[in-house]
Amino acid sequence: MTTEQLIQQIRTKKSFLTIGLDVDLNKIPKHLLETEDPIFEFNKYIIDATHDLAVAYKPNIAFFEAYGLKGWQSLKKTITYLNENHPDIFTIADAKRGDIGNTSAMYAKAYFEDLEFDSITVAPYMGKDSVEPFLAFEGKHAIMLALTSNEGAFDFQTLKVDGKELYKQVLETSKTWKNSENLMYVVGATKAEYFTEIRKIIPDSFILVPGVGAQGGSLSEVCKYGMNANVGLLVNSSRAIIYASNGADFAEKAREEALKIQQEMEGILQGGVVISDLNIP
Amino acid sequence: MTTEQLIQQIRTKKSFLTIGLDVDLNKIPKHLLETEDPIFEFNKYIIDATHDLAVAYKPNIAFFEAYGLKGWQSLKKTITYLNENHPDIFTIADAKRGDIGNTSAMYAKAYFEDLEFDSITVAPYMGKDSVEPFLAFEGKHAIMLALTSNEGAFDFQTLKVDGKELYKQVLETSKTWKNSENLMYVVGATKAEYFTEIRKIIPDSFILVPGVGAQGGSLSEVCKYGMNANVGLLVNSSRAIIYASNGADFAEKAREEALKIQQEMEGILQGGVVISDLNIP
Repeated sequence: MTTEQLIQQIRTKKSFLTIGLDVDLNKIPKHLLETEDPIFEFNKYIIDATHDLAVAYKPNIAFFEAYGLKGWQSLKKTITYLNENHPDIFTIADAKRGDIGNTSAMYAKAYFEDLEFDSITVAPYMGKDSVEPFLAFEGKHAIMLALTSNEGAFDFQTLKVDGKELYKQVLETSKTWKNSENLMYVVGATKAEYFTEIRKIIPDSFILVPGVGAQGGSLSEVCKYGMNANVGLLVNSSRAIIYASNGADFAEKAREEALKIQQEMEGILQGGVVISDLNIP
Repeated sequence: MTTEQLIQQIRTKKSFLTIGLDVDLNKIPKHLLETEDPIFEFNKYIIDATHDLAVAYKPNIAFFEAYGLKGWQSLKKTITYLNENHPDIFTIADAKRGDIGNTSAMYAKAYFEDLEFDSITVAPYMGKDSVEPFLAFEGKHAIMLALTSNEGAFDFQTLKVDGKELYKQVLETSKTWKNSENLMYVVGATKAEYFTEIRKIIPDSFILVPGVGAQGGSLSEVCKYGMNANVGLLVNSSRAIIYASNGADFAEKAREEALKIQQEMEGILQGGVVISDLNIP
């Protein structure tokens, strides 16, 4: 999917909500455990109930790998279901991959060709040749970790290199890489005030924002500092939506939670400075 | 496997060779493509031909994921084959994982419980809570990227934070983490002279060393600067061994290459300062 198609979807749905699919068999409704593929069944219900409110889904690959071969089958079925039934949706493999060039190329093949995701999250530690293989695909995107939402973000990401925080150096250096227009970035919602500085470095890029909801970030704060003329944000919520209920009404409750966030987003889009740029009626 | 068991294996085999299983269907002998599971068949032949010369095998997870469901099946069969037939072998999932705590815990479950690897490579960018979940398993190890063997290593790893290179900061900080005795580190062979400084920070830890062979690193240089009293090195070779021939004699040729390296290692162990510590007769 091109960035333009993603922006168009945001305009149409008046939403920039990403729903994270972190499916833990201990947390889903008990009656689904009797089905042949509980993870896929759960995802299908969540997607069916929320696809008009969200612009992206983000399967968290760890939660599939943890169930071995069955998990991998569920992942394949989930992405196939999304691509076949909701081709307008932007899909994100939350995988945090990154390795030497020939290995990153194999990960790119896995997620872009075999599974047909639109994007994958990647880690920057190994530098240019570990990320560039993900950028060589037209209409595909690498979403690179910049400043994450966890406590450990302060271990290395905010250390100063030559007087500038490492995550800023990561952002700046990555702009020089081949096909860097296919880069997006991860910046945690728990650090909303950092967005001002970040937008000086990457004014036009899309930013995937985890940490709203369960992790404590504020949507309005993130938008205040992080939004650009094309919105430029994909705000993720996982647990607050998918585990809103673990009863028979889980899909309905998930929709209610997603709707709350979508409506807050619509309000921000219509009330904010970006309305004129977006031409939302 | 405990570190002590790994050291014992090194003593017995007079080898600290790790064989990387980066199986590319375009590079393996054509006749194997007709078998039901060419990746597993290839690995099985390589393992059978070399297991007395190597102390560890390192399946590169990207090369399995690239083949989707079939690749995952091959991975499962490969690790099961190793664990059932060669329980003395140290197994490394070369996966470069790392995410927020609850997600890293799922990766740990995938690789330590479902697949039963002894260790997994992890990336440090997300800090403490992204790595500690891998350290909570007795007899299991996280092998964290410090200084890698690729060009991109110089993008961020060698930048100075507070007057000290980032990779050194990563080493030092990681020593304060819970169960840090279960940490090992990745340091590329292409940067042998860096080992002197690294050994000042982590004198006792095991270091996984990629980059010997195809990537140009020198075994003797690495040993000169990087070896400690318990050897403390796992030197990896992938392509130079597994693709020594792509004919019917591939396993035999792989053994020849592995034997050359093992014999060079035995020479270093018997000729070097470590012989007295190792008590090799």
